[in-house]
Amino acid sequence: MMNVDVDLGERSYPIFIGPGLLSQPGILSPYIRGGRVLVVTNEVVAPLHLDALQATLADASDRQVDVLVLPDGEHTKTLSTLQLIYDELLSKRHERSTTLIALGGGVTGDITGFAAATYQRGVDFIQVPTTLLSQVDSSVGGKTGVNHPLGKNMIGAFYQPRCVLADITVLSTLPVRELQAGLAEVIKYGLLGNHDFLLWLEQHIDALLAGDADLLAQAVKICCDEKARIVAADEREGGMRALLNLGHTFGHAIEAAMGYGNWLHGEAVATGMVMAADLSWRLGWISADDASRARDLVARAGLPVCPPPEMTADQFMSLMSVDKKVQAGKVRFILLRGLGDAVVESDIDPDLLRQTLSAGDRLCR
Amino acid sequence: MMNVDVDLGERSYPIFIGPGLLSQPGILSPYIRGGRVLVVTNEVVAPLHLDALQATLADASDRQVDVLVLPDGEHTKTLSTLQLIYDELLSKRHERSTTLIALGGGVTGDITGFAAATYQRGVDFIQVPTTLLSQVDSSVGGKTGVNHPLGKNMIGAFYQPRCVLADITVLSTLPVRELQAGLAEVIKYGLLGNHDFLLWLEQHIDALLAGDADLLAQAVKICCDEKARIVAADEREGGMRALLNLGHTFGHAIEAAMGYGNWLHGEAVATGMVMAADLSWRLGWISADDASRARDLVARAGLPVCPPPEMTADQFMSLMSVDKKVQAGKVRFILLRGLGDAVVESDIDPDLLRQTLSAGDRLCR
Repeated sequence: MMNVDVDLGERSYPIFIGPGLLSQPGILSPYIRGGRVLVVTNEVVAPLHLDALQATLADASDRQVDVLVLPDGEHTKTLSTLQLIYDELLSKRHERSTTLIALGGGVTGDITGFAAATYQRGVDFIQVPTTLLSQVDSSVGGKTGVNHPLGKNMIGAFYQPRCVLADITVLSTLPVRELQAGLAEVIKYGLLGNHDFLLWLEQHIDALLAGDADLLAQAVKICCDEKARIVAADEREGGMRALLNLGHTFGHAIEAAMGYGNWLHGEAVATGMVMAADLSWRLGWISADDASRARDLVARAGLPVCPPPEMTADQFMSLMSVDKKVQAGKVRFILLRGLGDAVVESDIDPDLLRQTLSAGDRLCR
Repeated sequence: MMNVDVDLGERSYPIFIGPGLLSQPGILSPYIRGGRVLVVTNEVVAPLHLDALQATLADASDRQVDVLVLPDGEHTKTLSTLQLIYDELLSKRHERSTTLIALGGGVTGDITGFAAATYQRGVDFIQVPTTLLSQVDSSVGGKTGVNHPLGKNMIGAFYQPRCVLADITVLSTLPVRELQAGLAEVIKYGLLGNHDFLLWLEQHIDALLAGDADLLAQAVKICCDEKARIVAADEREGGMRALLNLGHTFGHAIEAAMGYGNWLHGEAVATGMVMAADLSWRLGWISADDASRARDLVARAGLPVCPPPEMTADQFMSLMSVDKKVQAGKVRFILLRGLGDAVVESDIDPDLLRQTLSAGDRLCR
């Protein structure tokens, strides 16, 4: 088992990474303060992993564990689903000393975390992410929330879990498309700030795709380390934390245009990163070869490299202007000064931007 | 103008107290970072005070001020009303740099504060409380949130405003019943921790009821000082902050039983404080004379001293058991060891408690 300690002062917490963690009785007990727990999961994950989690939680005989099984999918990440969690907590009379455990992917984690942040103004929260994407990304950083019809993640809070359990074994139950979507965020950490990791990924991408548990554990560990380092330096997203949004300005627009869940978040981010590399090349910041390397790694991971052909540049512009990354009316882009060296830039030549937004043919070649 | 500085480290903020503050152009400008503002108010307050606030905000010619007028009343403090604020913010494309200003009483402040805490994971927030109750109570402490059909304030967050403007002049537009309800919370600060202030209140209660602006300003200042001191010592309600709930365990049960808004919050708290004093007397902690003094001051403020005759002890017990103040299944009571000396106690002889819950006749004598 490997550990990543997220250092946030009194809100610090550990991430445990390794195979079979979900089957270790008592592993979560040091992080459960009260006698009651609500496990929030979904209809896809519950049949696969709920029994194991319940067995793990059975080490304390006087612990009362309730379970809420939500529908699955990004379209369920709404205030109405959130209300189901509040209803369950209140109808079962959970008190402020209760612990919420999110068992599932990013949607389950985000919505359960937001419920924990806001139920009785804050109760304890544990993440058990079951997708690669949520293990490398949503389990670090404390971002919780739900979508609004007019924008993704527009309602939420920063709220830290008491601990995160990233069991690598559960990744073997993932559909390959989900694994690929997770690799998009893995690649992101190479591109934005760790050139050595990018080289490592170029070497191991096929084995990762094939589900090699040791390599996956290493990748999760490195991504969590990278993200933990960035988040510790900038918990509330004032500065460098924005770099984590590499690929997300374009990606969120794609998700919004195509309807949440039709493109997976990781797929949209993958294409968004290729577009960010393309724009960086047009700005003269990276070479054509470097832009191609980024694009090729994304393609090798089985991820889309070109935006939906039906999306126009105008549609991109309009959707990007409601993104949370907008400041003073200007869209902030995360671009590359080099592979492994991302920067924030909001003053972009609109002509070059339009070229990238209309560059489908080039990107998809 | 008087100041209270709420000392919460990087979340510190000032409360300005005095007559005519709402008519001072530019008074809020140092606390508005971006160029956009959403004023959230309600249909009762808007006709009285919105023009003045808008004139005050007009000192920056490039500032864009939107206004959202909500329906009035405690029954509107729901997730659906909250959603109206999100809808307005998103449809008008407010960014993370926007400022929300709550112009109204406790309901407006709580719901607007929660919207600010959760819109894009947190935007700036200014309180302009227009009732005595919200000036002395909800503008200090950072409690924000909405009600759930199964419990009051069950969904929320701790979130601090950038500043609070308590304009004493606006209190002259309050219906007398609202002024009385505010005096309940004023009396609370005397009872829970400041015997000198209790004596001052016994001396001035009639003039306060008559709307004496100087005395009201002094009372607001002292209450804010008391609350700021307690909150600064215990921001997240781990310990002594619980004392602020004097009268609230009983009071919340009354509000829930009678339907939110039928009894005003202050009225329910007033009766709750009389019940707390009664229970403290039954426990032998205070004399019958002291219990009567508490009851008499509440009565002189025009507030109810006995619970609704239709409420049974069983109904009280059931409703109190879902209160946020429940810990490990035990209801926590705030009781009096003396006038001006409150303590938290959860180990109460159930027989004595039932006597208080059934003591309507005695309290209403």
